[in-house]
Amino acid sequence: MATSFQSPKGTRDFYPQDMAVRRYVEDTWRKVSIRHGFVEVDGPTFEFLDLYKIKSGDEIVSQLFHFEGRADKEGRAEHYALRPEFTPTLARMVAAKASSLPRPIKWFSLPRCYRGEAPQKGRGREFGQWNVDILGGDTPEARRQFDLESAALCLDGLRELGLTKDEVVLLWNDRSLVEHLFAIVGVPAERYPFAFYLLDRIAKLSPEQRRQLYTQNALTENETAFFEKLAAGQDPLTDAFWADLPHADVEAYRKPILDATASINAALAAMGFDGWARYDASIVRGLAYYTGFVFEIAASAGDLRAVAGGGRYDKLVEMFGGPSLGATGFGMGDMVLSVLLQEKNKLPKQLLPAPDVFIVNALDTPAAAQKLLAALRASTFNADRTAIARPGLIAITSYKASKNIGKLLQDASASGAKLAIILAPAEFERGVVKLKNLATREEKEIPLASILEEVHGALR
Amino acid sequence: MATSFQSPKGTRDFYPQDMAVRRYVEDTWRKVSIRHGFVEVDGPTFEFLDLYKIKSGDEIVSQLFHFEGRADKEGRAEHYALRPEFTPTLARMVAAKASSLPRPIKWFSLPRCYRGEAPQKGRGREFGQWNVDILGGDTPEARRQFDLESAALCLDGLRELGLTKDEVVLLWNDRSLVEHLFAIVGVPAERYPFAFYLLDRIAKLSPEQRRQLYTQNALTENETAFFEKLAAGQDPLTDAFWADLPHADVEAYRKPILDATASINAALAAMGFDGWARYDASIVRGLAYYTGFVFEIAASAGDLRAVAGGGRYDKLVEMFGGPSLGATGFGMGDMVLSVLLQEKNKLPKQLLPAPDVFIVNALDTPAAAQKLLAALRASTFNADRTAIARPGLIAITSYKASKNIGKLLQDASASGAKLAIILAPAEFERGVVKLKNLATREEKEIPLASILEEVHGALR
Repeated sequence: MATSFQSPKGTRDFYPQDMAVRRYVEDTWRKVSIRHGFVEVDGPTFEFLDLYKIKSGDEIVSQLFHFEGRADKEGRAEHYALRPEFTPTLARMVAAKASSLPRPIKWFSLPRCYRGEAPQKGRGREFGQWNVDILGGDTPEARRQFDLESAALCLDGLRELGLTKDEVVLLWNDRSLVEHLFAIVGVPAERYPFAFYLLDRIAKLSPEQRRQLYTQNALTENETAFFEKLAAGQDPLTDAFWADLPHADVEAYRKPILDATASINAALAAMGFDGWARYDASIVRGLAYYTGFVFEIAASAGDLRAVAGGGRYDKLVEMFGGPSLGATGFGMGDMVLSVLLQEKNKLPKQLLPAPDVFIVNALDTPAAAQKLLAALRASTFNADRTAIARPGLIAITSYKASKNIGKLLQDASASGAKLAIILAPAEFERGVVKLKNLATREEKEIPLASILEEVHGALR
Repeated sequence: MATSFQSPKGTRDFYPQDMAVRRYVEDTWRKVSIRHGFVEVDGPTFEFLDLYKIKSGDEIVSQLFHFEGRADKEGRAEHYALRPEFTPTLARMVAAKASSLPRPIKWFSLPRCYRGEAPQKGRGREFGQWNVDILGGDTPEARRQFDLESAALCLDGLRELGLTKDEVVLLWNDRSLVEHLFAIVGVPAERYPFAFYLLDRIAKLSPEQRRQLYTQNALTENETAFFEKLAAGQDPLTDAFWADLPHADVEAYRKPILDATASINAALAAMGFDGWARYDASIVRGLAYYTGFVFEIAASAGDLRAVAGGGRYDKLVEMFGGPSLGATGFGMGDMVLSVLLQEKNKLPKQLLPAPDVFIVNALDTPAAAQKLLAALRASTFNADRTAIARPGLIAITSYKASKNIGKLLQDASASGAKLAIILAPAEFERGVVKLKNLATREEKEIPLASILEEVHGALR
């Protein structure tokens, strides 16, 4: 039994190198969030199952890992689910303290999330996420700023990880522009909810399924032709799209898109992201959910899923029992991003911290080496030592019985350490040790009493 | 429905202040681990349920959150459990790559862990943990060093968090010392497994349950008297303990304890922890599991549970299908520790990062403010600017429609920012802004063109 144990399918073991990559990405997300004025939050890894139905409906249940907690005195067990995303937790937390939280609420979190579905490329059953939200905004202008700040933070995170505008692109759309499109085609306003629902899933529906939906909802010939063009991936910004659609005022459709494009491009350019964004009429996923601006980050080449996605969703906090409060934000998973960073060769070569000092101990006992290790790790000078206070050094040793200095120095080099301190019996008796720079191979004798100063000097 | 939603019992919502405390503790654990030469690892949040039975037996199941994954083609669903601890994952990961991992393996992890039991003070259903392990060691001396290094790292973590030897104590015991005790009392060697099992749970058993166990296992009168003294909390280091136990050679029991105490105290003193450790015969929890040295960190006062616990367990990797490999380490939970840090008033006052700059925007449009924010957040000088390259600043603004500079400055002060940059129409037209130090209230006009240099100068 024991030898057959594996990690569950769709999960990952993070050995030191893998973990260093994960830490690098998470630390970058955190650093960038903080300099944009966001503060970190988190919630439970599991929530009541019902919490996830509020935003996503009952159909979410089949995509979750869910389980029962301990039964109460009446024998009723509570039903929990591992979080598939952070948004319902965020909405619950904001709703609970909405009146006392300073506005705007600028929160980020780095939750680990879970999906019960079958794993695919870039899509696991456990993954990390960068979740960012801005809540509040008294005016449409303020809310517009929040949309742009959220998009700019998303791009800044990617840029900080080394990606360029040649490698990723922010594709955006807006619910109001799609409504405008519906109006031009002649979709009646009462059918907009259905039209958004249809748009959201059109790529996944078979021709037969689409035909059934058209018939059930009594779509006109015009509307049917319109949705079929979208299903075929045709772009409503092109003349070809409108060629055989009667009564279509193409310019009336294009004008607000061109205006919004100019405005968004100018704002993002001012924020340092000139040429990173593009309007894309095919960004409809989630428009049944979002109430305004919506965006995805796509890799410019290849067949990767979206790197990130987000937008404005002003009904969120109200749905979870809070006040009416504007909300905009995005989520970025670590799995597609990691594939992209590896494909584009963007990961720094050296992510594991190199030891500062390796102690080669050729003495009979470990006591002196342990004492020196402790001093190096603690090494914080005060003013009396006429040296600057500094954090502890990364100090290690081997624990071999061998006293062969040559072999121990090979271990020191293999560890990647910058310096070696050699404790040899005859020298040590004289109160002296050797300090060796493992890169230049230079070494010198120094008094044990001034070892900390010498090591800090050599590392400077 | 929506308004009634709460977090599940025994879990925590981490609002910004709570999260800042959690980050501070986790960052400290990480920093200290790294300077002791450990590297970070992690595994899945959930594992196959069976993995946890290997180390803890079937009885662990009732303490776990467990659930079924998606069924395979034959309709068999896999059974998973949320991890209650990291050790089985670590053992599985080490066993899988034992031959290729450099020795000693010095790993730490900061897993979030889960228990299905009812929450108590300092014991939640979801908690964070600092998990540390050293694996390998060719000689008894090397393994002894690893035990001490592990204990010293544990103490260094607590000291880095501000705790002193007056507030916490490392209490230790050793399986060999307890076996020595059994031998003196006359427990036959074949009964040691039962004796360790009994010791492990003696504090939780009723007198009736103990009596049953004595009878079932045919204990002698001597053995029974001995275990009853331990159950009553009597200390075998005292003369009173032995007064009515015949044939007891008390000095033969004390000598190895005194020798080991001297050796451990000297080693820990050399490592900077003079007077932090004490032998305690009552540290028996887990001795059925551990194979040698075992320790707990206790708060010196109050009724808190153990802050941390660990020891040597040389059978671990073999149990999980790997080779024979010495293993020593410890786990420290975040909940008891947090209570202790709060009780002792050890948490730094300012844990949330203060914004460097708050932009007071009294201009008609947000464009200039957004551009300035982006420049401050990105602000990395190169050599041409005759200034040192530095990380981006934390820069924020309010998004209010108000152009009242006095009120906006109040928002700036409330944000905790160090500096305010005031964009006012008349000055801005002249290419000038005001830079205000929010602590000293000093302000001066500066050219917009040199704002980055001035801000960095003011922050220095």
